Amino acid sequence: MTYTLILLRHGQSEWNEKNLFTGWVDVALTEKGREEATRGGHLLTEAGILPDIVYTSRQKRAIITANLALEAADRSWIDVKRDWRLNERHYGALQGKDKAQTLAEYGEKQFMEWRRSYDTPPPPLDDASEYSQVDDPRYADLGDDVPRTECLKDVLDRFLPYWESDITVDIKAGRTVLIAAHGNSLRALVKHLDGISDRDIASLNIPTGIPLVYELDEDLVPVKAGGTYLDADAAAAAIEAVANQGKH
Amino acid sequence: MTYTLILLRHGQSEWNEKNLFTGWVDVALTEKGREEATRGGHLLTEAGILPDIVYTSRQKRAIITANLALEAADRSWIDVKRDWRLNERHYGALQGKDKAQTLAEYGEKQFMEWRRSYDTPPPPLDDASEYSQVDDPRYADLGDDVPRTECLKDVLDRFLPYWESDITVDIKAGRTVLIAAHGNSLRALVKHLDGISDRDIASLNIPTGIPLVYELDEDLVPVKAGGTYLDADAAAAAIEAVANQGKH
Repeated sequence: MTYTLILLRHGQSEWNEKNLFTGWVDVALTEKGREEATRGGHLLTEAGILPDIVYTSRQKRAIITANLALEAADRSWIDVKRDWRLNERHYGALQGKDKAQTLAEYGEKQFMEWRRSYDTPPPPLDDASEYSQVDDPRYADLGDDVPRTECLKDVLDRFLPYWESDITVDIKAGRTVLIAAHGNSLRALVKHLDGISDRDIASLNIPTGIPLVYELDEDLVPVKAGGTYLDADAAAAAIEAVANQGKH
Repeated sequence: MTYTLILLRHGQSEWNEKNLFTGWVDVALTEKGREEATRGGHLLTEAGILPDIVYTSRQKRAIITANLALEAADRSWIDVKRDWRLNERHYGALQGKDKAQTLAEYGEKQFMEWRRSYDTPPPPLDDASEYSQVDDPRYADLGDDVPRTECLKDVLDRFLPYWESDITVDIKAGRTVLIAAHGNSLRALVKHLDGISDRDIASLNIPTGIPLVYELDEDLVPVKAGGTYLDADAAAAAIEAVANQGKH
């Protein structure tokens, strides 16, 4: 008896296209991103993998990705749960900044530390910034705990309690769970599932729009470390491209 | 202190366009239906009415209507609950049949009784029919209780317990609830809210894609009977058109 878990990173967003740090800013998908999402749904259908419930962040690029993928897979009718703990990493004061410009301004060492350090967050975002979520009604229940910046460790610290309290309960009930989320919230989960070290997680990238399927044993340990991308060739090419993001 | 409830009937479906009885058959929206849904979302934005949670049926024409309306209103991030008890009335053996042909075959008296009688369901749908939901995984929890036909009274009998157990709880918590559903599940709710008689409900039609907003008092009684359509002129014209459906 194994369980099935599907991870889906949202397709290209308007700020991916513009090469800006996004984090908790709620930007929309591009037309290309919408097509990626639909293709992700078709890959699920072709593989015969049918989600029973979908989890999303509170951010539209993940939500619309889930909507489009499920529509393509004819599974729009499944249950839905949304939670801020699946949100992208909060990128602090970098939110809204150009990646190439930030790289040029601060140098590669600082740039890569902000992007990939496990436990060093960027400087906090000012509450007065147009890119702050302090007054966003969707996070009203967080009160003053709404993040101003996060490192990947912070993402694990907020994601794992929700994984344990909600997502694993559905998985252990035998439901095929689809998680539609973000580069860093999914990296946090993969780090946990595959037992990746704080150091090695730095070089792990998850491509957009390609379902990553994990078979999990009774203890929720992956049967195959790293899971299986439903389009392995496209995933390999996209991982290479993400690794070079901002460098060229 | 009043509560706000928004009802939204799905936009045109492929079988609305073909003039077939649909019921529990899971047909998609037409392009026109998708545009209606998006316009419904814009009407919400213009009115400044912001749903906090959306309820839908398990049928894609209502679900996609909700998705599109919420995307247009920039409220995709709200909580979602889906339940079969918001489904359209099951149309029994009429599912998949042409309305005009049924009218010609059975005569107007029988035709109108099937369409509008409060407590006389059409003949049951055979379990072997391609339009049966007996083996549909989305209704697996219903077991052998999956409907084979329903009259409007049956719809009230299955909808009202869910209204009481779930929807009214969210309303009384002060959440603005959006219900994206179907002609007959929404007629059932309106009958209950406005205290419409078994006889008078026959002539009540709800147009597609136009949000119908109810302000409810502490006892969930409408402050204004019948609520308010966000585009009153379009609603009046559409109600007229629906009333003539199948006759011409």
